[in-house]
Amino acid sequence: MDIFDSPDIKLLVFDVFGTVVDWRGSVIAEGEAVWKDRGLDIDWEKFVDQWRAGYQPAMDPIRNGKAEWNIIDVLHRQILDDLLIEFDVQHLTEEQKIDLNYIWHRLNPWDDAVDGLRKLRQQFTTTTLSNGNMSLLVNLSKHAGLRWDCILSAELARHYKPDLETYQMACDLMGVAPHNAMMVASHRLDLLASQQIGMRTAFVHRPLEFGIDGLREEPDESFDLIVSDFLDLHRQLTSDISLM
Amino acid sequence: MDIFDSPDIKLLVFDVFGTVVDWRGSVIAEGEAVWKDRGLDIDWEKFVDQWRAGYQPAMDPIRNGKAEWNIIDVLHRQILDDLLIEFDVQHLTEEQKIDLNYIWHRLNPWDDAVDGLRKLRQQFTTTTLSNGNMSLLVNLSKHAGLRWDCILSAELARHYKPDLETYQMACDLMGVAPHNAMMVASHRLDLLASQQIGMRTAFVHRPLEFGIDGLREEPDESFDLIVSDFLDLHRQLTSDISLM
Repeated sequence: MDIFDSPDIKLLVFDVFGTVVDWRGSVIAEGEAVWKDRGLDIDWEKFVDQWRAGYQPAMDPIRNGKAEWNIIDVLHRQILDDLLIEFDVQHLTEEQKIDLNYIWHRLNPWDDAVDGLRKLRQQFTTTTLSNGNMSLLVNLSKHAGLRWDCILSAELARHYKPDLETYQMACDLMGVAPHNAMMVASHRLDLLASQQIGMRTAFVHRPLEFGIDGLREEPDESFDLIVSDFLDLHRQLTSDISLM
Repeated sequence: MDIFDSPDIKLLVFDVFGTVVDWRGSVIAEGEAVWKDRGLDIDWEKFVDQWRAGYQPAMDPIRNGKAEWNIIDVLHRQILDDLLIEFDVQHLTEEQKIDLNYIWHRLNPWDDAVDGLRKLRQQFTTTTLSNGNMSLLVNLSKHAGLRWDCILSAELARHYKPDLETYQMACDLMGVAPHNAMMVASHRLDLLASQQIGMRTAFVHRPLEFGIDGLREEPDESFDLIVSDFLDLHRQLTSDISLM
């Protein structure tokens, strides 16, 4: 298909953490398999939940203009350093701490993600739009076998989602008007923000993102599509003529 | 291979026009095959050579701070509008002019490029670093079947190569020190600039870039590698232990 003959929706913009990759399951799995033997015999569910819980509070001062820009790798490390004190872990070398912090570069995709993205890429242009920094997204995609047409990060706008500048930057860099672009995410706030600049929205159910007993995000009635996974997204996008 | 266990050179940074794609042959081929029938029965060799010749003079005022930032799509269009007057072409619609300008989004790769990049990507992280804008590079890569780990453009730095800011941005975004990155290009100036921030360099012979009778770029003795194509680059990078 000539990419200039594509239908009304030309660009799919993907959130990554939770939407594409199972960050919680991946960190727990590597923790149990690798880091336990290195002396981190801790409650990995609790550890990853607290690590992730530090993420929004670390971004907020930057979003509010009260702190300088910093990439997620740096924020992850600041949270990690506090956590290691809290969990009374004192024996890690600096090299090991760097490696542990890069656990976020080695997350595994949900089962449908690689195949779903492959199918979607045949008919649409696909890009990430994540708060993760560029090198994190590049390493993660290589690790997970995720193929994108482009990798974009909040780092390029120096604004974290849901700041509207980030969504606008993605559309501008891709040369696509917002109404020809669809934000794909498993989080309401991400999609609601993208709507504000005129993007279309697809909500992906990822009920296990925060664990079996964890928070479950629910879609808003304003979203254009509600899908169970990326294969379902492909089915709905390629059959729903009314949306085209 | 774990990407964190890679040898000394971790990142390959590719110039695109001339190095990866045959811009001159591609524009001439589409001109003859498509645009002749639309009334552009012109000397396509002369037309593309003049179009390309306008490229440096269009970037120079931006590089010198005498003009505002503009992406290559816009510069290409400005040059095109002048050329259409010079070649006395008056019948094109605005839609056709936009389409013709996007000929630079539809360039074809040199014969070795797709396979060479596939092999190189198995052992290194690969990215573009082109003066072409992001959407041009994304559309071009999709058209040509080029698979990258990342697509980076001078647009992200708002500095055209050979401004050093552009090379530094690429290394910074990829989280790689310049001495762990290698610039790959068929142009001396591009490689000489990248050396100034400490990058390694590979010169690719592309003797037909400017046509059979056109300019031939020659390597500088300071370059780390001199290769005949991307398959040769793969061979030299994976056999030359001394460089690792």
